Amino acid sequence: MCLKDEIASFMKSMIVTHRYRGAVIGISGGIDSAVVGALTVQAIGKEKVLGLLLPERDSAPETLKDSLMICDYLGIDRIVKPITGILRSVGVYRLQPPALFIPRKIQEKYVRNKLKAMTKDDIFLQDLRNNGDQTFLKGLAYYRAKHRVRMVCLYLEAEKRNFAVVGASNHTEALTGFYVKWGDDSADIEPILHLYKTQVYQLAQELGIPEKIRTKAPSPDLIPGITDEDVLGISYTELDSILMKIEGGQDLSGMEPEKIQRVKQILEAAEKRNLRNLSLGKLGN
Amino acid sequence: MCLKDEIASFMKSMIVTHRYRGAVIGISGGIDSAVVGALTVQAIGKEKVLGLLLPERDSAPETLKDSLMICDYLGIDRIVKPITGILRSVGVYRLQPPALFIPRKIQEKYVRNKLKAMTKDDIFLQDLRNNGDQTFLKGLAYYRAKHRVRMVCLYLEAEKRNFAVVGASNHTEALTGFYVKWGDDSADIEPILHLYKTQVYQLAQELGIPEKIRTKAPSPDLIPGITDEDVLGISYTELDSILMKIEGGQDLSGMEPEKIQRVKQILEAAEKRNLRNLSLGKLGN
Repeated sequence: MCLKDEIASFMKSMIVTHRYRGAVIGISGGIDSAVVGALTVQAIGKEKVLGLLLPERDSAPETLKDSLMICDYLGIDRIVKPITGILRSVGVYRLQPPALFIPRKIQEKYVRNKLKAMTKDDIFLQDLRNNGDQTFLKGLAYYRAKHRVRMVCLYLEAEKRNFAVVGASNHTEALTGFYVKWGDDSADIEPILHLYKTQVYQLAQELGIPEKIRTKAPSPDLIPGITDEDVLGISYTELDSILMKIEGGQDLSGMEPEKIQRVKQILEAAEKRNLRNLSLGKLGN
Repeated sequence: MCLKDEIASFMKSMIVTHRYRGAVIGISGGIDSAVVGALTVQAIGKEKVLGLLLPERDSAPETLKDSLMICDYLGIDRIVKPITGILRSVGVYRLQPPALFIPRKIQEKYVRNKLKAMTKDDIFLQDLRNNGDQTFLKGLAYYRAKHRVRMVCLYLEAEKRNFAVVGASNHTEALTGFYVKWGDDSADIEPILHLYKTQVYQLAQELGIPEKIRTKAPSPDLIPGITDEDVLGISYTELDSILMKIEGGQDLSGMEPEKIQRVKQILEAAEKRNLRNLSLGKLGN
């Protein structure tokens, strides 16, 4: 059985066994949720799949457009629910100055420069360790609340219908801690959690995901102007090839020592992110 | 080492190892968070503990009063952040009719009668299975969003300070699925997750938790007038004694067959609640 059929059949069996009546997916405009959308449609039919689009103040302008295009492409129903008002009542935007009259391009440039000014290699490591000054910590609280609020909204729509929340986490993100704990990592079914990011790209091609989605630079879309690879400090191709070797217990000679070092640092720092519900009992981590 | 010292020492070591600068606890006015508060104070000192009080439209009037009393008793700083506005913007209250001019006592009576009118044994089982008609499902989405929004608020305050979120889940809740997935079950450290509810009561006495808190009927405080034991359909004493025997592989003869049946039904239905991130990979459930 080919990969997509295997995943679709797994999803169908989970949905049937646990008596879900359908599935809700957060569509972000990115490749992961597009792939998951296509797999879910294959598994249970487009009539039972609901796309939820959850843009906010800082979302890129193309996010909504791309997400709508994906839903149209998949032929699924969708709800657009802007979460700006929710984030405002939670107090999230108070943590970062508003950028009301500043053009998007300038915001993005400002953020990129600020990012570069910080010790380049350290920004993601500091993030993984929750380590930094007051401004940095506020930034962490700020962006993470967004994905958590999205999770709340996904479950609200799903539970009203007894639908499953289908997540779009991949193996590369899970290993490197490149996700928000209790945010985008929290779902009922995770169909691509065993796939590296580069495998998700291959699958996207097989599934016929529109080229625009497959070729845009992956971004968490949480802070203007920042791409995944900016944050990770390494390309997905390099990252995955090193991760695969490390996971497979294979020899790393031949790989760039600097890149190996980067990946090892990330894996070590990701331990904190990956901890949850630390306890003395057998139900703990 | 006695139980409370063992837990406090575990907590201290987790907080030091993972370089948290303190701890945030959601104080609900109930016994579990009061016990966790006392343990955390013992572990790291009251100056490093922050209590977060998150009342909403449907919270019992004594919730806030009791929670403030607990914070005073523990000597910890606290923030009161009503979440009614957040829940309104999420759309939670639209799922249940407002009760603006209806006195609390009548609301509570109404809910209790409605609960009794439903097949008594089935309300919690239906909940665990996400199974029921449209009104019932809306009720599930409604109450669960509250604990998830609380989790968002706890993490916002914690991450700004690099504090750990300390949860108050106990072993009885975890086994029976008596929690909100990605809500009150989601924390960094869970100091009492290995203790049955009846053990939490014993510990509360040892810790000197005020009698008012130890003697009030435990309630999820999510829907007016409903206590834990109403929902569970069995007392904690009976529930724990059966759970302990089942977990210990001990003989159940001598226990009431009806009660055993109830517990077994709950455990079976709780499987769905306890599932998370179902995937094909090794990182899944």
